Amino acid sequence: MYFASDNSGPVHPQVMAALNAANEGYQMAYGADTLMNEVRDRIRGIFEAPGAAVYLVATGTAANSLALATLAQPWETVFCSPVAHIHEDECNAPEFYSGAKLTLVPGEDKMTPEALRGSILAEETRGVHGPQRGPVSITQVTERGSVYSLAELQALCAVAKQYGLPIHLDGARFTNALVALNCSPAEMTWKAGVDAVSFGGTKNGLMGVEAVVFFDESKAWEFELRRKRGAHLFSKHRYLSAQMAAYLQDDLWLTMARQANANCARLADGLRAKGASFLHDPQANMIFAQFSRARHKQLHEAGAVYHLWGAELDDSDDAEILACRLVCDWSISAEQIDQFLDLL
Amino acid sequence: MYFASDNSGPVHPQVMAALNAANEGYQMAYGADTLMNEVRDRIRGIFEAPGAAVYLVATGTAANSLALATLAQPWETVFCSPVAHIHEDECNAPEFYSGAKLTLVPGEDKMTPEALRGSILAEETRGVHGPQRGPVSITQVTERGSVYSLAELQALCAVAKQYGLPIHLDGARFTNALVALNCSPAEMTWKAGVDAVSFGGTKNGLMGVEAVVFFDESKAWEFELRRKRGAHLFSKHRYLSAQMAAYLQDDLWLTMARQANANCARLADGLRAKGASFLHDPQANMIFAQFSRARHKQLHEAGAVYHLWGAELDDSDDAEILACRLVCDWSISAEQIDQFLDLL
Amino acid sequence: MYFASDNSGPVHPQVMAALNAANEGYQMAYGADTLMNEVRDRIRGIFEAPGAAVYLVATGTAANSLALATLAQPWETVFCSPVAHIHEDECNAPEFYSGAKLTLVPGEDKMTPEALRGSILAEETRGVHGPQRGPVSITQVTERGSVYSLAELQALCAVAKQYGLPIHLDGARFTNALVALNCSPAEMTWKAGVDAVSFGGTKNGLMGVEAVVFFDESKAWEFELRRKRGAHLFSKHRYLSAQMAAYLQDDLWLTMARQANANCARLADGLRAKGASFLHDPQANMIFAQFSRARHKQLHEAGAVYHLWGAELDDSDDAEILACRLVCDWSISAEQIDQFLDLL
Amino acid sequence: MYFASDNSGPVHPQVMAALNAANEGYQMAYGADTLMNEVRDRIRGIFEAPGAAVYLVATGTAANSLALATLAQPWETVFCSPVAHIHEDECNAPEFYSGAKLTLVPGEDKMTPEALRGSILAEETRGVHGPQRGPVSITQVTERGSVYSLAELQALCAVAKQYGLPIHLDGARFTNALVALNCSPAEMTWKAGVDAVSFGGTKNGLMGVEAVVFFDESKAWEFELRRKRGAHLFSKHRYLSAQMAAYLQDDLWLTMARQANANCARLADGLRAKGASFLHDPQANMIFAQFSRARHKQLHEAGAVYHLWGAELDDSDDAEILACRLVCDWSISAEQIDQFLDLL
Repeated sequence: MYFASDNSGPVHPQVMAALNAANEGYQMAYGADTLMNEVRDRIRGIFEAPGAAVYLVATGTAANSLALATLAQPWETVFCSPVAHIHEDECNAPEFYSGAKLTLVPGEDKMTPEALRGSILAEETRGVHGPQRGPVSITQVTERGSVYSLAELQALCAVAKQYGLPIHLDGARFTNALVALNCSPAEMTWKAGVDAVSFGGTKNGLMGVEAVVFFDESKAWEFELRRKRGAHLFSKHRYLSAQMAAYLQDDLWLTMARQANANCARLADGLRAKGASFLHDPQANMIFAQFSRARHKQLHEAGAVYHLWGAELDDSDDAEILACRLVCDWSISAEQIDQFLDLL
Repeated sequence: MYFASDNSGPVHPQVMAALNAANEGYQMAYGADTLMNEVRDRIRGIFEAPGAAVYLVATGTAANSLALATLAQPWETVFCSPVAHIHEDECNAPEFYSGAKLTLVPGEDKMTPEALRGSILAEETRGVHGPQRGPVSITQVTERGSVYSLAELQALCAVAKQYGLPIHLDGARFTNALVALNCSPAEMTWKAGVDAVSFGGTKNGLMGVEAVVFFDESKAWEFELRRKRGAHLFSKHRYLSAQMAAYLQDDLWLTMARQANANCARLADGLRAKGASFLHDPQANMIFAQFSRARHKQLHEAGAVYHLWGAELDDSDDAEILACRLVCDWSISAEQIDQFLDLL
Repeated sequence: MYFASDNSGPVHPQVMAALNAANEGYQMAYGADTLMNEVRDRIRGIFEAPGAAVYLVATGTAANSLALATLAQPWETVFCSPVAHIHEDECNAPEFYSGAKLTLVPGEDKMTPEALRGSILAEETRGVHGPQRGPVSITQVTERGSVYSLAELQALCAVAKQYGLPIHLDGARFTNALVALNCSPAEMTWKAGVDAVSFGGTKNGLMGVEAVVFFDESKAWEFELRRKRGAHLFSKHRYLSAQMAAYLQDDLWLTMARQANANCARLADGLRAKGASFLHDPQANMIFAQFSRARHKQLHEAGAVYHLWGAELDDSDDAEILACRLVCDWSISAEQIDQFLDLL
Repeated sequence: MYFASDNSGPVHPQVMAALNAANEGYQMAYGADTLMNEVRDRIRGIFEAPGAAVYLVATGTAANSLALATLAQPWETVFCSPVAHIHEDECNAPEFYSGAKLTLVPGEDKMTPEALRGSILAEETRGVHGPQRGPVSITQVTERGSVYSLAELQALCAVAKQYGLPIHLDGARFTNALVALNCSPAEMTWKAGVDAVSFGGTKNGLMGVEAVVFFDESKAWEFELRRKRGAHLFSKHRYLSAQMAAYLQDDLWLTMARQANANCARLADGLRAKGASFLHDPQANMIFAQFSRARHKQLHEAGAVYHLWGAELDDSDDAEILACRLVCDWSISAEQIDQFLDLL
């Protein structure tokens, strides 16, 4: 009963098998391994983007920071949600890599086109004095477990494009959103207007691999240099390639995300049936549920692991309603969900 | 017959086994995994440094850049050899992370105390106008396959200490040097005067792990923040820990380095016997040998893989003597060496 | 009738006279001029801070950015008002120099202790993932023409000190605030808890000089290096010193600020008498007044120069009430004010 | 008898007069002053470059750092002489602004085309691992008082252009070189192949103004943003414009440089007649002369002010030959020169 994070579970056995299989003989270092050619082709195929530039890095923060640095100038500002990972959880890495600052588009979770336009307009009139308007970064799935619909993505991108701004998609949970929307990767990205994607794997069963995909290949060499200068180019790159190749083999990526989402939905349904309420409407593999401190205590004592959300498990009133964050990854089973629900 | 790089071979089977074994159940992310506690203790033990700060990153460039950024101020200069990896092969990463510049101490390979002192003195007299004197970075094994003796290390450190400068050891091939010197890790580092070490594993049988060790714990929190800000903190950190734990288990690290060095010595002896000369005296797992273009061609045709050094395998005079770099890692066997030598 | 900015008026004749007087013979460059010794002593005396570190730079953005860089680490966040100059009008210079990001404390203009505490607490719980809490930057006079009372400054500083955070005062209009409060420089700075001050002169009759004052001398050498590295150390520094010496001579700085504030008050009173309302309570030398588009047109036609505030002088309804910003510097006379008011 | 630096003398009276004259009434801030339009046109005319982008900053380090940042990418290296001001005397400012590193082209003073080509070729073969080749920065007059001939400039630029590298000219003593060569500004810059110039005024009679000129206007807006982000945009910009306008009026810039060069030549001739030798052939307004410690002592006692060069005026052997640097600016008179020579 481990719901603390989709960073805490094991790597999928097929991915481990691929790592073991790749551990044979000699391979050119630094991305010139033969598996990377395969990965590049597959990702281009999956995204229906034969000219896309595709690179692998090992952390989501690296993917986001390097992608944004390639899209933004150091005198610009990046528009994002106040709860974006790039703002709250990357210890200034996006600023370090890009030199740009972040403008927080007002809102609680998802950006709305109106709020985005308002923030863009607010940066309009100071000439050389204010930061210049830079990329828009959209998190899909959001840090609150929400999923932008295709229409919402298109509307945000339309606002950005109106002002000539490039669009970055932080897809640390890309596949969980994709299966929630039941759409194609192309629809969720370049067909909506997205220019660059952090295509995450680490939170969905990999050991530590994220792809960065640029639909316009002209930034490719710059990205390669930025990756190296950021110390994110792996010498034994084949072990990144192997993970990603296994991920995309036989729809494993989709299977894992579907399982995570389904079990999370099962958990949400169960909690709802038990009377819990939610801070945000559960749409992918992450939910923010509320129930009494007494129940939280009971669950913790029974071995459930998860984070309270802005609250503490102290000696206060046991009837008080406290929020928590529950995350499922591919490894969570229906049995664990039911065991958890049975405790309530 | 693969001598192109110690970045090209497979991961040692015991390390893969450890990764497979670690792939069980749930673990706290971001370095709070239980294996990391074990790793920290082992490294402290190996270095006889119970208070050392120990961190893992995935690339050697990250280890070097983050260590130097923690030791240097952005208005300082780092003293290093003109052939140091941090100068030649890291695409400005040390400068990006630290803000400092590099001062190249004149010489062909190893720094001498006299040359180091000369470079330090040359930066002495410009007050606020010139860069300030910062850390000294020593590469052990050097990029030319040389090993500093303990006396040489001590002498370099003594010069640095005389001017109050901290010392960084780029130990991408730390263990190859250690077994070449047959000394203790403490002797090769803090007992000689070193303040921070990039303790490499990737070039010696790991998938991608380097430890950074600070003997003065006061910089620990700063390093943690710099690592996160650089996007080098792994969420599924247990897989870094597992590699390093296996590395240090039952002297695997030493065994692999001894094997690499021994086979490299076998190769050097064999080449010498065949009349080859060397650009640098072979001392660890890397040699720079010279023989005729004709022989190079013959070896390449027979499947040997290695890099020529400042030369091309073109249609020029076959009798011309060309240099090459030959590197052995743990996976190279005596049989491969002999097969290679037999071709000559 | 020029109210567009306190950056637009001439230099006070006594300052020009001092520049002419300083233009004699030879002087050591780069801050070693004899006048700088005098300036340093005077500023230390004025601030009752005999150990203060005192430096001159030529722009307010340089003063702010260098002061913040010296107080902040690159993984920290600086707390400031959403309308702070460092956020809105310095094109990422504070971020460029410090590496830190800015956290906007919610509010319309002045920060309140409650809001500051809330923002500090909101940055508390993410460990290495979020930016660390860094300096608090207070603008006095604010960008909306407001003046923090001594009690307000003390309360803000108390909150910052409770969390161990240093405090920077952006005093681009320091003297206008000082004479509005009728307090001592020490009271408005270190006695309230301020650690470093941008002590502006450019907006109060100088050609281009701001002093940066650190009450703790331990950061002095770092500041000197940062100033040089930022290309802000003047070779012919005597001409900065001469301006500041004249500024502090015979209370010229106070006289100019009193005149600016007095004339601005005269303007506010006159506007109030004519029925204008104010977006912010006028407290120093800058007011945000509201009256009809018709009156704005009439004033512009009569030669008055000032900026509308979020509005345009177009062909819309002439009765519409539009805001404007009116700024007085030392050079504005009572006659100009009356002439302006007579036009209404 | 002040030969310590061309940073130590007074501002030319005509420049002070222009500052006084500009100190009238109100002017738009931040470079929108009417004088700046005049300055831009004059510089375009002088350089025969009607489309050039022209900006003013207050320090030579700012001019160089901002120009290089606009020409270089952060993963590149800038080629320059080991004695270039950007390397020795700017405390990492060029690296701070550009992110690039510096490659020192071997040599004692002026770069030769052969040495430049060698350094460029040496950076050729490491792909993404090494820094990429970036701009070439040429100092004219060099820091050793040498002047590149037009043929030498053309040859250096030809090498750079062959590899597609942009060329920056550090012209802190631009006019001294120009009058030494008796050529046109266009010949010494874009006609030779130069892309951007730091056109210095501070060392030639101004208070503190350098123009940055880009012959390709496409980098103009980027430069403006970099200048603001670097805190180098002056609010009361008219006082920069006024200096530069006076400088270019009635050939004042040329007159001052001719006088400085002529007096320096008179000094060199006199020293030669007295038996002094020179470290470098005197070509502009700076000479490196050698004579005995006894004579240095005698001169210092008589009130001459200048810097010894790598030597000390201590109690060693009075017959020892010591080098010194002697610099003339516009304000040095023939009488001072003769007085100095008479002392020998």
